[in-house]
Amino acid sequence: MSELTQFTVTEHTASYWCVTFNNPPLNLVNPETILELQKIVGRIEAAHDLIVVVFDSAHPDFFMARYDLTRAADTPTAPGPTGLPTWIDLTTRLEQTRVISIASVRGRARGVGSEFCLACDLRFASIEKAFFGQPEVGAGVIPGGGGIERLTALAGRARALEIVIGGEDFDAETAERYGWINRAVPDEALDDFVDRFARRIAAFDLHAIAETKRLLNRTTLPKSEHLLESQSSFLKATQRPELRVRGGRARQIAIEAGADFELRLGHYLGQV
Amino acid sequence: MSELTQFTVTEHTASYWCVTFNNPPLNLVNPETILELQKIVGRIEAAHDLIVVVFDSAHPDFFMARYDLTRAADTPTAPGPTGLPTWIDLTTRLEQTRVISIASVRGRARGVGSEFCLACDLRFASIEKAFFGQPEVGAGVIPGGGGIERLTALAGRARALEIVIGGEDFDAETAERYGWINRAVPDEALDDFVDRFARRIAAFDLHAIAETKRLLNRTTLPKSEHLLESQSSFLKATQRPELRVRGGRARQIAIEAGADFELRLGHYLGQV
Amino acid sequence: MSELTQFTVTEHTASYWCVTFNNPPLNLVNPETILELQKIVGRIEAAHDLIVVVFDSAHPDFFMARYDLTRAADTPTAPGPTGLPTWIDLTTRLEQTRVISIASVRGRARGVGSEFCLACDLRFASIEKAFFGQPEVGAGVIPGGGGIERLTALAGRARALEIVIGGEDFDAETAERYGWINRAVPDEALDDFVDRFARRIAAFDLHAIAETKRLLNRTTLPKSEHLLESQSSFLKATQRPELRVRGGRARQIAIEAGADFELRLGHYLGQV
Repeated sequence: MSELTQFTVTEHTASYWCVTFNNPPLNLVNPETILELQKIVGRIEAAHDLIVVVFDSAHPDFFMARYDLTRAADTPTAPGPTGLPTWIDLTTRLEQTRVISIASVRGRARGVGSEFCLACDLRFASIEKAFFGQPEVGAGVIPGGGGIERLTALAGRARALEIVIGGEDFDAETAERYGWINRAVPDEALDDFVDRFARRIAAFDLHAIAETKRLLNRTTLPKSEHLLESQSSFLKATQRPELRVRGGRARQIAIEAGADFELRLGHYLGQV
Repeated sequence: MSELTQFTVTEHTASYWCVTFNNPPLNLVNPETILELQKIVGRIEAAHDLIVVVFDSAHPDFFMARYDLTRAADTPTAPGPTGLPTWIDLTTRLEQTRVISIASVRGRARGVGSEFCLACDLRFASIEKAFFGQPEVGAGVIPGGGGIERLTALAGRARALEIVIGGEDFDAETAERYGWINRAVPDEALDDFVDRFARRIAAFDLHAIAETKRLLNRTTLPKSEHLLESQSSFLKATQRPELRVRGGRARQIAIEAGADFELRLGHYLGQV
Repeated sequence: MSELTQFTVTEHTASYWCVTFNNPPLNLVNPETILELQKIVGRIEAAHDLIVVVFDSAHPDFFMARYDLTRAADTPTAPGPTGLPTWIDLTTRLEQTRVISIASVRGRARGVGSEFCLACDLRFASIEKAFFGQPEVGAGVIPGGGGIERLTALAGRARALEIVIGGEDFDAETAERYGWINRAVPDEALDDFVDRFARRIAAFDLHAIAETKRLLNRTTLPKSEHLLESQSSFLKATQRPELRVRGGRARQIAIEAGADFELRLGHYLGQV
């Protein structure tokens, strides 16, 4: 995949790939990230023997930090093969492909980074080093990339609401209790745990796994019209002057806090 | 709010209120409680800058004990602004208003008291001092105020069924595991935890919070016809002679047990 | 019930029965098991005073091991009173009868044995001695007896998918965290816990319990067409040559592993 600049695809076998995100210095998601993820989903769909893809990160502190708001104006929205806008297209296809996607999370997964994890089929995370957050409301907007729909399905009304309106950083054990992730795993065991699970299912029958996912998908996917409405609501919110005011304050706090700002975004959000 | 006799409304700021229930000696819910709650919901809806309301209790042992059955005949049922009967009207409006409601539970929340908590958006409770119960089935009736619908959505079929048919007292940690509440918090930390969370979201953007709740509500609210059917089923059950027989036995046990009866209702229910 | 050869029905009282499965040496489920379970469900439906039935096992290591694949060709499929095929008929009727069914699990409950537990209303299990598994995918097929539908409702999309595609053995504490069972109980306390709960509700009002279950069932039952589609998908998968290849390898591993094979099926599945 020579066209990828932010991701490395390791084909362990024809049935087991690993896709590693690396966009220094902070593993921010930007317009290129989205376009490359869309290409990767296309490659996954086309790989006839592929059973499982693990998504992880090359950065010890950030799985996917958040969206790079300085590039907001360039965000791709062109309809993909599903006819849906880029981000909804790629996350929907990831859910619908017969290939199993696993997010193996070490470091922060916030905003669109959390939403990408939520669009994966399974989520395993480091007890010591993974943190999850939907900080949008603290910045004056809402999660517009499926976070509301998918968190509601996994964590229920009360906990999804707490997560989204509170904008706090959740450690992996709390995220497990809330259903946000499948399981929290001790950091030193995470890589082996995920690799072992992936190799196990990669040796199982492709058709049995595909059929299981298809049957589960009958009742568990978000509605496209809901995803579209949330994205539209997010885009409207970005036009409100409130966002600029809060954004200005956040930038000031970020300058004062330095590197700690992105590490403890949930904390600093309470000061904006 | 001079017209309130059982509740004290503390307006910490224009965006953060606290509503404290105080109806000695046991914090029983009676017809006046329901009418005052309905007024409070009206005030919440009309408060333009309000973001979050915390409901708590002035009684260390009882959040809301249960319904005062000696006043059953006076229970208000007049349709409210939604066209639904009083209790369904006020709980439905609490779910639908853009304001976030939080139950901060210390002491017992049983029957209609648990059902009120379930109609709040979020529930935090004291590990040592909060207890939850739906004792209706032990008395020969069923939860008719939304408990069945809202517990099913939060805890799933099996656990909601166990809770309702068993009529046991659940401590806060078990209630958390079952999804009944968001989180169990050590008693000494509960007030600070809730206050900190409330002040945090009260400083966030009102429109972002309102929009989040609206989008979550698309898929998570009980159907009015189900709430009406359960209330109707409850009312029919109160006409059955079985209720009078069990009620008589319960009163006898209550006399013998004294003050301990309401403290450990789940226990004594097993003797009726 | 003289016609039963694999089950013993103990009528503790008219309102509380215990049904114990005993099919040595492994408590495999075979065609006779299914027909006897269907008869038992019929007896449950016809027992006018019955409130609760506990299903347990006489075997310390196996609740219900799995389906006896050597008898696959004899599996009964004749429509029952619901018009649905035998297994779907009996599990659907168990969910819909007003009687409460409880699986009290010690030992392995795998495949159709797990699916029978999932069709019971409540599940309690031994922390030390209960294990749950859906090993079908590891054998090249899928759970065709309601496992996909009922696990999805209880555990959510991500965890149900992990359980089914991974085919691992889950201990009771993990099963509790995932929502697969109501509660994990220390082994020495399990029998008393279940007996006490059953006697408690057996002393409650039959109509109140029946009405609670009916109201819960409005929103929590799998759709018949989904159950039928999954069974049909399972049957199609059994025709695939892949199944025979994996079955041959599994039999070879089973011979080498001896008695340990069925005790740790999840483990050995990873070698097929």
